[in-house]
Amino acid sequence: MQVKQLGERGIIAMIHRMQSSPPPGYVGIGDDAALLPGYPDGWLISQDMLVEDIHFRWDWATPEQVGYKAAQVNLSDIAAMGGQPTAALTSLAVPSQMSSEVLESLYRGLTRAFDSWGVIILGGDTVGTVDRLVLDVVILGKPSAQGPVLRQGARPGDRLMVSGRLGASYAGYMLLSHGASWPGEDIDARSVLTAHLEPHARVALGQAAAPFIHAMTDVSDGLAREVEELVQFGSVGADVWLENLPICRATRQIAAGFQSDGEDYALFGGEDYELLMAVPPSHLEAVKNAAAQSGVALTEIGVVTDGRNIRWLKNGEPVVLHGEGVAFDHFSR
Amino acid sequence: MQVKQLGERGIIAMIHRMQSSPPPGYVGIGDDAALLPGYPDGWLISQDMLVEDIHFRWDWATPEQVGYKAAQVNLSDIAAMGGQPTAALTSLAVPSQMSSEVLESLYRGLTRAFDSWGVIILGGDTVGTVDRLVLDVVILGKPSAQGPVLRQGARPGDRLMVSGRLGASYAGYMLLSHGASWPGEDIDARSVLTAHLEPHARVALGQAAAPFIHAMTDVSDGLAREVEELVQFGSVGADVWLENLPICRATRQIAAGFQSDGEDYALFGGEDYELLMAVPPSHLEAVKNAAAQSGVALTEIGVVTDGRNIRWLKNGEPVVLHGEGVAFDHFSR
Repeated sequence: MQVKQLGERGIIAMIHRMQSSPPPGYVGIGDDAALLPGYPDGWLISQDMLVEDIHFRWDWATPEQVGYKAAQVNLSDIAAMGGQPTAALTSLAVPSQMSSEVLESLYRGLTRAFDSWGVIILGGDTVGTVDRLVLDVVILGKPSAQGPVLRQGARPGDRLMVSGRLGASYAGYMLLSHGASWPGEDIDARSVLTAHLEPHARVALGQAAAPFIHAMTDVSDGLAREVEELVQFGSVGADVWLENLPICRATRQIAAGFQSDGEDYALFGGEDYELLMAVPPSHLEAVKNAAAQSGVALTEIGVVTDGRNIRWLKNGEPVVLHGEGVAFDHFSR
Repeated sequence: MQVKQLGERGIIAMIHRMQSSPPPGYVGIGDDAALLPGYPDGWLISQDMLVEDIHFRWDWATPEQVGYKAAQVNLSDIAAMGGQPTAALTSLAVPSQMSSEVLESLYRGLTRAFDSWGVIILGGDTVGTVDRLVLDVVILGKPSAQGPVLRQGARPGDRLMVSGRLGASYAGYMLLSHGASWPGEDIDARSVLTAHLEPHARVALGQAAAPFIHAMTDVSDGLAREVEELVQFGSVGADVWLENLPICRATRQIAAGFQSDGEDYALFGGEDYELLMAVPPSHLEAVKNAAAQSGVALTEIGVVTDGRNIRWLKNGEPVVLHGEGVAFDHFSR
């Protein structure tokens, strides 16, 4: 079997088989970040790797954008635990003929994103490579006083809320792969290209919402998969109201231009780095206020049920998802 | 300028320029591992990246050996701080056509090394890549009750002690690059090939010696550079007695066969993963006992001086180091 067929879940299952469970106090593989125990509240830690020609291309993004996005992808993992990011480590495999100006721009992007949250780079590694650049970032953070918000914990009756807008990053990706270049020709193009090249982790929202919610994850792999993970970890089900998905007009138009539709981009596109939360009805107002104070839109897109399956509903009617023409895959994109 | 000319130190200096210093309680870039503050004693953290065809080759090493060495390289960073390794994260960029059996063997090597110290893999990332495998490991550990042992801290009069033997890894590397394959044709070849392909981090020794010593680092980049770092961080000097370097007969013979000598392999070869310590004379016996209990040889190779320079002495006479014919370089090997 090829690694590609094994998939990310297969790899996680394999590692679980090979070792014992983490001791009490730890959160191990499977959530947005792991938890190291400690007084008063331990450390959150997560790691994300970006590979040239898989996750970014030099003809699409500036070195500063590549660094900036790498930082945001990692910040998003801390946001998804409701934590406060504090420190980072960065490993780079650098083609030996690469200019030091490119490296400096890349680090300028990293530190620009990290500085806004007071995150300090504490270490890492720099090695040579034969051809493609690889950037691996480790982010550390402190969980909120109530402890980390896990994927696990959604309860029947909780509302599913999602921040920002969905599908825009994939719309930007589609424009780039059909010859567009940043900053784009018009305001719509610029909006989705920026969503793809310079996403913003929802750190402030994650922290503000943490005290009020049951479960959370970031939307990095498309909403369909993230809803699936949230209900699977919580041993619950969900109804998702597709007509409510926050998809901007530009994303819908661009999707239509590629014979697809905005919903598929939102459900299967990936890389939106928004937050998906399970919110108890009694705390809906508190979470909406938290979002308003963070300046982020928050949309109710469904409800957690006591079934074990997910119903994708369009104006009340169940639909079957296909996601044709949208290929998000860690191993081939 | 190319990144290669900038070098690892240039990159570290660049990152320092771009961000503020870490808050009190942190140890940042520049030591074997960073320190995250916390009660009672915080966390040590380090990250090391291995790249196919730079740090390992599939025709030289089995996948299990690659995983095993990646783990040991990281364990060595915790050993060098006198810490106890506890947890790890692993990021992999995997060629999409790689078989899942190779991945499983690689993780078997990782977990075999980690299991001996109770280290649990808590997370990481797995992504696709176009061609060469990249493995980036993050290791976490607890410092000793006295706090971490830094590179900084050597004082005039301290003895320089080094564990195990030096240069064997480079002798193994030279055999491999001239057509030898593991396990080798005779016991000498096997010994140096194993030193290169399956190094052992000196975790028990690092912990046992920690209460008694002023400064420590691991010998990953050749003894010459590590002595330099130890005295530079301590604002001291050193006399190093070259005739005392622990170099085994096999290493000397193999070096001679390649028109070089064992001392150059020890000083410039790299990847030995032994420990170099600055030991106050009053604690020499305690450290020797610690080494004996850990089953590791320990050799006195010099003394810290109150000058600012390093004197490399051969039977009392100063010599100038060249290291011709030995090329350890993170960016080209």
